[in-house]
Amino acid sequence: MLTVIGIGPGSEAMMTQDAIAALKEADVVVGYKTYTHLVKPLVGDKEVIKTGMCKEIERCHLAIDLAEQGKNVAMVCSGDAGIYGMAGLILEIVTKQKRNVEVRLVSGVTASIAAAALLGAPLMHDFCHISLSDLLTPWDVIEKRVKAAAEADFVICFYNPRSRGREGHLAKAFELMAPWTSPSTPVGVVKAAGRKKQEKWITTFGEMDYSNVDMTSLVIVGNQSTYISDGLMITPRGYTL
Amino acid sequence: MLTVIGIGPGSEAMMTQDAIAALKEADVVVGYKTYTHLVKPLVGDKEVIKTGMCKEIERCHLAIDLAEQGKNVAMVCSGDAGIYGMAGLILEIVTKQKRNVEVRLVSGVTASIAAAALLGAPLMHDFCHISLSDLLTPWDVIEKRVKAAAEADFVICFYNPRSRGREGHLAKAFELMAPWTSPSTPVGVVKAAGRKKQEKWITTFGEMDYSNVDMTSLVIVGNQSTYISDGLMITPRGYTL
Repeated sequence: MLTVIGIGPGSEAMMTQDAIAALKEADVVVGYKTYTHLVKPLVGDKEVIKTGMCKEIERCHLAIDLAEQGKNVAMVCSGDAGIYGMAGLILEIVTKQKRNVEVRLVSGVTASIAAAALLGAPLMHDFCHISLSDLLTPWDVIEKRVKAAAEADFVICFYNPRSRGREGHLAKAFELMAPWTSPSTPVGVVKAAGRKKQEKWITTFGEMDYSNVDMTSLVIVGNQSTYISDGLMITPRGYTL
Repeated sequence: MLTVIGIGPGSEAMMTQDAIAALKEADVVVGYKTYTHLVKPLVGDKEVIKTGMCKEIERCHLAIDLAEQGKNVAMVCSGDAGIYGMAGLILEIVTKQKRNVEVRLVSGVTASIAAAALLGAPLMHDFCHISLSDLLTPWDVIEKRVKAAAEADFVICFYNPRSRGREGHLAKAFELMAPWTSPSTPVGVVKAAGRKKQEKWITTFGEMDYSNVDMTSLVIVGNQSTYISDGLMITPRGYTL
């Protein structure tokens, strides 16, 4: 059995009952080293296999091999495993290679949800998730989505907004949005949500400072109705008060 | 203190530790009757105030009044309270009316995440959430978003896809998407995710039958790369296998 677990943003408090139970029942825990570290208190002295960044395919093969050997394997992903996590790759490999492994997916709280609760209520209306990493997606596809989302007035959650080698992506995305997004549009940033080094701030589209955004950050750009009140970022659902 | 809690799709197993703790600590639980019923086993003999559908503003005022009187109030929402839930309305009222209430938001697993894990891994690439309810949103805004999302090849999660008085909305949305969405595009539907009456099925954009979709359903339309394999709906992240 291979259970692919979304552990949420990082703290045990934000994990689901299912995720905790699945971790406790596992024989072996597989994951990116940051994530296996986050669940350490729950794992005890179980076998833990950590792999580094960009080792996703290797990591999935390892987990599938172990499960095929009869081990109860827990693969940990941050947030939800089905959102830019490992659920897809696991299912792709298992179905394509007809591997003899039962896969179970356990949902988690993804970064946008955790960040939103820390900022106020920015996701109360239609929104989209866009990853600004072009490692696996051609940049022109990303561009098209950024422009479409801004033009149609979606609230936008940027995953992987900025990292080494992709320092300029967030600034480029903001440039693409500028024809439709007013400079006063609220923007919220949360870094390392639910972890020890958590930081958050709210600014505007026009005053955005990209330099403090990194790969652990989630950036939420409001829609035309989003406002800031008492330090909170709020997108009205549309009720008349 | 007023804690606005996302209880997830319905089962205790999919609630976070934080949500369970907040419910246990509360003096009084406020919510839409279906949701207070879902958490009944956790609530014990606490005071429970249920209100009906379309009573959102009344419900929020009730919760805020009780919290201002010094009660520890838990307001329960299905999924995540910050996604088409009550978090926004609570913050709108509290900030506008300068109410003397401390509000805490507890994140939950929203319907799209729970549905995705039941269908396979359809949300592995950029996606958006669109509510097809025009109770609070002009239909032309919804139309614009549906078309933009289809044109930019987002995976789309439809919330409130179809209900009494809005029987035709999902069919209309599909019509709007047709210029960009191929008939073979996989579509997944999950009804009452995580609850006793849970149902799910996978079909295609061209063969979609709207009649069995209701207001407890979540509909996910894939992007151009989404495929069906072994009865699972998978959107590749882009890894070369």
